[in-house]
Amino acid sequence: MLVKSKIKDIQTLGQKKFREQEGLFIAEGPKVVSELLESGSGNVKEVFALKDWIGENKKLLGKTTVTEISEKELERISGLTTPNKVLAIVQQFDRRTPGATKGKITLVLDAVQDPGNLGTIIRIADWFGVEQIVCSADTADVYNSKVVQATMGSIARVKVFYMDIPVWLAEQHDIQKYAAVLDGTDITTIKKISEGIIIFGNESRGISAEVLKCADIKLTIPKKGKAESLNVAVAVGIILSHL
Amino acid sequence: MLVKSKIKDIQTLGQKKFREQEGLFIAEGPKVVSELLESGSGNVKEVFALKDWIGENKKLLGKTTVTEISEKELERISGLTTPNKVLAIVQQFDRRTPGATKGKITLVLDAVQDPGNLGTIIRIADWFGVEQIVCSADTADVYNSKVVQATMGSIARVKVFYMDIPVWLAEQHDIQKYAAVLDGTDITTIKKISEGIIIFGNESRGISAEVLKCADIKLTIPKKGKAESLNVAVAVGIILSHL
Repeated sequence: MLVKSKIKDIQTLGQKKFREQEGLFIAEGPKVVSELLESGSGNVKEVFALKDWIGENKKLLGKTTVTEISEKELERISGLTTPNKVLAIVQQFDRRTPGATKGKITLVLDAVQDPGNLGTIIRIADWFGVEQIVCSADTADVYNSKVVQATMGSIARVKVFYMDIPVWLAEQHDIQKYAAVLDGTDITTIKKISEGIIIFGNESRGISAEVLKCADIKLTIPKKGKAESLNVAVAVGIILSHL
Repeated sequence: MLVKSKIKDIQTLGQKKFREQEGLFIAEGPKVVSELLESGSGNVKEVFALKDWIGENKKLLGKTTVTEISEKELERISGLTTPNKVLAIVQQFDRRTPGATKGKITLVLDAVQDPGNLGTIIRIADWFGVEQIVCSADTADVYNSKVVQATMGSIARVKVFYMDIPVWLAEQHDIQKYAAVLDGTDITTIKKISEGIIIFGNESRGISAEVLKCADIKLTIPKKGKAESLNVAVAVGIILSHL
């Protein structure tokens, strides 16, 4: 049974202001919730699920607080068009300061504003073993439900930070900084790398001039046809796959 | 001024049934509409736009029928959250039979159901100079407004067909058929190609068994991290960029 006050708590977490205030976010669907439980971080605070799902996931749930709810109750609290068995209240990750960049690939996102793009980029980073993403303050909020959904569970593994990008880049010494642009060096001519910072920009404006100044090497995906640009998540996938 | 009957005509084109019946579709926003006008195909039947946009695009419009509308009228007919200056009624392209596959790269989509993914794939195809995409009947409708929007104008250049995939593949002789799967040959070990058919599958189920049987070579994007899969549009981008 779902009490009224809990429904309200869940609904308010749809807003960034309340997510920040409470340090919580909402994750939905079997895929995302089980990846968060499996990560063993202990971040999942409370689970609301249908009877069937609870039965199938007893072991995974361990001592997590669970409330069995009806399909109708799930519809009331879900933000999805098609509610999917389970919803969890999750504690935000402690991600105040990015780790070292040496010896690793780190992504930088300068004002990537579409939640679906950010979520897809987190999923791509996880595929290629990239462990951290540093975002400008005007990039989409990683705890936005559309972002959480689009990560398909990778949010449990890839660390996402919000920083002042030019300031942060200036502190990263002895490491190559690459920028994805439309008029740089053909990526297919560049040697494979195992460390470096790769910067991607806004969906329509690209990388801001202030951030671009910090880059050592400009990269471009060679074009054979006529499209003006590529979707930013697709560009991240292609560049990570080449480097 | 917009007459009532025209508003109704435009609204009914939101449904696939009426789009097919009339052989028309709706395109919105300066980017998509100008690419369609520039393509010179003569498919743009009627344009509804704000005064400013009409003034700036007199030359591009040529003899196209144009109706000047107010922002309020545009809001009434637009399917976008943020209506954007111009909307056009466009004739569907005559695309009953795909062209030859020899000497070219052709994409095959087996049940790609998300309109955003289909639109993004069309945009990627256009970037890499791929001229035609053959889709199964249960792939998203190319004239769905979300698809048109996500192509960013590339819908004017890339030809999209709907066929019975196993039947069509059986007719394609003397050409390699590649399938993107999770357990195939590492794409980075494969030689570059300039002709071939590349098959991509549904967002969650992948390529159906019946279609997979028709493939000569299975391809996989190498994984270093833990994500279970990649977004299909991202996979198209990575594979086209490698091959």
